[in-house]
Amino acid sequence: MAKDGSGSEPVAARRAPAGAAVLREDKTEAIRAAVFEELAAAGFARMSIEGIARRAGVGKTAVYRRWRSKLHLVLDVVSAVAVAGMPTPDTGSLSGDVRMLLEVAARALRHPMASQIIPDLLAEAARSPELAQALKAALHDSQESVAAAVVARAVERGELPQDVDARLALDLLTGPLYWRLLVVRDELPKGYLDALSGSVVAALGAALGPE
Amino acid sequence: MAKDGSGSEPVAARRAPAGAAVLREDKTEAIRAAVFEELAAAGFARMSIEGIARRAGVGKTAVYRRWRSKLHLVLDVVSAVAVAGMPTPDTGSLSGDVRMLLEVAARALRHPMASQIIPDLLAEAARSPELAQALKAALHDSQESVAAAVVARAVERGELPQDVDARLALDLLTGPLYWRLLVVRDELPKGYLDALSGSVVAALGAALGPE
Repeated sequence: MAKDGSGSEPVAARRAPAGAAVLREDKTEAIRAAVFEELAAAGFARMSIEGIARRAGVGKTAVYRRWRSKLHLVLDVVSAVAVAGMPTPDTGSLSGDVRMLLEVAARALRHPMASQIIPDLLAEAARSPELAQALKAALHDSQESVAAAVVARAVERGELPQDVDARLALDLLTGPLYWRLLVVRDELPKGYLDALSGSVVAALGAALGPE
Repeated sequence: MAKDGSGSEPVAARRAPAGAAVLREDKTEAIRAAVFEELAAAGFARMSIEGIARRAGVGKTAVYRRWRSKLHLVLDVVSAVAVAGMPTPDTGSLSGDVRMLLEVAARALRHPMASQIIPDLLAEAARSPELAQALKAALHDSQESVAAAVVARAVERGELPQDVDARLALDLLTGPLYWRLLVVRDELPKGYLDALSGSVVAALGAALGPE
């Protein structure tokens, strides 16, 4: 692949400091993509490093050079999603922001990959505190700061009371949609997101923290 | 166990019509209990009929005489939970009914067995439409009728508008708590159920179906 034909690693990789492990970024990305596909197809419990390597078109050692174990590989991939995070809507009104958050969340949760992988990882998380922690960061913590920003702006505009509870707000924003899409696994009826938006805005107005 | 010492089956079982399969109810119950314990300990994917039989103190054939496969066994046990259902609160006010529903749901979802088994079965349900259907009945349909009854009484009392959407109401009643307890897997802070009740009552008042 290198243009000068002197080796199999691209130029940037050959410039890494002497002694450092040189890992081809394209292989790393192929492995990351394969992890998502294997998670969706086989599930965490059944998937293997061998299957991931085969799907990525690399050798098993290429995987082990980057990650110690299947758990570490999944932790890393899931954490990367958490860092990517969600965009914070800023439409100028609470109802506009809530409507947009629900739209983005619905799209994310209906994605075939998410709707297979999230329940699977949650099942494993009940047995692995490390995975539970990474998943909490991916599913909850990044959204919590988005919800907190939306709530803070609404408080500034006088649309919500000062003592609104930001964590309860996140439960109200995310819970109903999660329940409908990933627990009941139902389609969203026509007009559902509009109706849910109205309800959630009303709920947020009453979401006061305990004194 | 039979009082007259004439055999190992209890009297009721010996009175079954000639030719019918005679199944000891105490063995059936031991197997059912073992299924829950194995589900919690090993998870659906890893558990086996052999492990269930061992835990129940019966032979493998005792299991296969009652259920064709692991999937059928779990379907049956989960369906039985659905039939048992939830009590419908009738406190005389919407806020009282909502508070009680949330209390009962929180207790059920925090039970160590439920908090292990539900995520596990949901993960499998993404791959098994039969299991998905049974789980939907257990988790959703029985609660939907409870929520519908609570909403209908509140409409009669004039506490909710006529056109409140009963299915959206269930998402609002169950979703936030489910998200907090089985997705984020956080403790409920002090005063949480009171604060959530207030928010949900406000949300229900705005939960109007699409025209």
